[in-house]
Amino acid sequence: MKIGIIGAGAVGGYYGALLAKSGFDVHFLLKSDFEHVRKNGLVIDSKNGDFVLNAVNAYSCCEDMPKCDVVIVALKTTDNGLLQTMLPEVLKNKGIVVALQNGLNIEKDISEIVPSATVMGGLCFLCSNKIGPGHIRHLDYGSIRLGQYRKDALPAGVTDALKKVSDIFSKASIPVHPAENLGMARWEKLVWNMSFNGTTVILNATTDRIMNNASSRAMVTEIMREVICGAKICGYQIDDSFTETMLSATQLMVDYRPSMKIDYDTRRLLEIENIYWRPIRAVEENGGEMPKSKILAYQLNFLDQMNRKND
Amino acid sequence: MKIGIIGAGAVGGYYGALLAKSGFDVHFLLKSDFEHVRKNGLVIDSKNGDFVLNAVNAYSCCEDMPKCDVVIVALKTTDNGLLQTMLPEVLKNKGIVVALQNGLNIEKDISEIVPSATVMGGLCFLCSNKIGPGHIRHLDYGSIRLGQYRKDALPAGVTDALKKVSDIFSKASIPVHPAENLGMARWEKLVWNMSFNGTTVILNATTDRIMNNASSRAMVTEIMREVICGAKICGYQIDDSFTETMLSATQLMVDYRPSMKIDYDTRRLLEIENIYWRPIRAVEENGGEMPKSKILAYQLNFLDQMNRKND
Repeated sequence: MKIGIIGAGAVGGYYGALLAKSGFDVHFLLKSDFEHVRKNGLVIDSKNGDFVLNAVNAYSCCEDMPKCDVVIVALKTTDNGLLQTMLPEVLKNKGIVVALQNGLNIEKDISEIVPSATVMGGLCFLCSNKIGPGHIRHLDYGSIRLGQYRKDALPAGVTDALKKVSDIFSKASIPVHPAENLGMARWEKLVWNMSFNGTTVILNATTDRIMNNASSRAMVTEIMREVICGAKICGYQIDDSFTETMLSATQLMVDYRPSMKIDYDTRRLLEIENIYWRPIRAVEENGGEMPKSKILAYQLNFLDQMNRKND
Repeated sequence: MKIGIIGAGAVGGYYGALLAKSGFDVHFLLKSDFEHVRKNGLVIDSKNGDFVLNAVNAYSCCEDMPKCDVVIVALKTTDNGLLQTMLPEVLKNKGIVVALQNGLNIEKDISEIVPSATVMGGLCFLCSNKIGPGHIRHLDYGSIRLGQYRKDALPAGVTDALKKVSDIFSKASIPVHPAENLGMARWEKLVWNMSFNGTTVILNATTDRIMNNASSRAMVTEIMREVICGAKICGYQIDDSFTETMLSATQLMVDYRPSMKIDYDTRRLLEIENIYWRPIRAVEENGGEMPKSKILAYQLNFLDQMNRKND
């Protein structure tokens, strides 16, 4: 069985290296880091133990890569336009695609590109950053909440395919929690992402500073509540107490820069469309609104455009 | 007739100097700039003509100042706590107080301090900055919308006292537009202040950059609409077209840093309470809400606290 990894950043690099280290036949499709990783391998600094993956099956273009049984999509969603040509090239017929990305409707897009594939979404509870070419720093956590996509958007439950992918990750000591309802899991993830990702950019602050200030803490709490309301409007009943769960989890975190903050600091395109505008539009299409999140989304659009203006 | 000016910054310094230049008997109560202004006078760089006011009646404490017939309050609202002792000291019995400040319920507070006084609010459409001690740069505009306060909060109309103060300003070539309904005028001013003041701080941008970007322009437009809705909930019917009026006016402005942005850049306390929280609470007390403005207010609180943290 061959496993393909598209994108070897903080997520794909970390999980792909763990899978390869556990003996799986892993193939990495890389862009900017290709030459570096081919020569130097992948370097993982992890709180669970540092390691270097020396012999990496690295490819710079999808035509060179073998067809894979399981393809893990770990691109930034802003690059998802590339999947249109990549996925049909690297995925075996009736293979499995696992999207380890944030946002909404990712699996629907993928399913339209490779209609015969089994598509899953994985929500990563992972604090990791790419700190250099082929160099990942894993700070904390690491579990994946994995759910299968159904074209009718109904809960898929725990399928055999889901168990299979779960087993693969488990063998590499990656904790997996199956999600019977992928849509629900995605909205739960948005509760954190919509409140913290943008706020760390707009207020130029790590999670701990946001948590330790009464005003910013009140703000993220209100955003969380708005996302939970939005989820309900879209048919996903998240309990109101989930806000407290997320706040407590964040309180326990190290002083973390989420991916959006790192993207901003390194002047890369931000994932505003998938993390903010898609949920906002989904709620509006169902007759609701997310006024607070919308303010963050507008601010992020402005900051993102100014940030990359001289590129 | 004696005119007192409390605070000689971008507003009080500019208008006070114009009044003194026109021959009125003006007395300035100063804080940090007292020594400098006493020695060097007030320097006004104005698009209408630069001038220096050499002999300034400057005071560092209210006990030294003569009782005045008209007292113009031009402090930052964050210093309004000082009025409790200042106003009874510098205002003649049954005198007139004119508050040239932004925010809500300013006149109510003043009226409670000096109950026998006639209290007015002046909304300044003025682009001016204090650029050094006793040194004001007047960039654009300069008119005052002047309305009288009634303890029952009903529109006071154009009273004799209002005409009197209007005449004073007019003689100093300061354009005055009487407002029959002060509450309405205050809410109209908030339409601009709540949308632009905070946004220039949060997005670190002058008004022109906010106007020239589609996302930030959409955002300030939505905030303006929210303020107009809030005003309606509080009983003030501002026409929806007012948003377009304000956007057009801003488009014509020079690339302006509003007072809140200048306060932020110079690490001074921001007027968040009067410009944001008072209107937000007023709307909430009347059964409405201002979710978008609330996000700005929370963000401003956080940024303000971080900004002055090492003071």
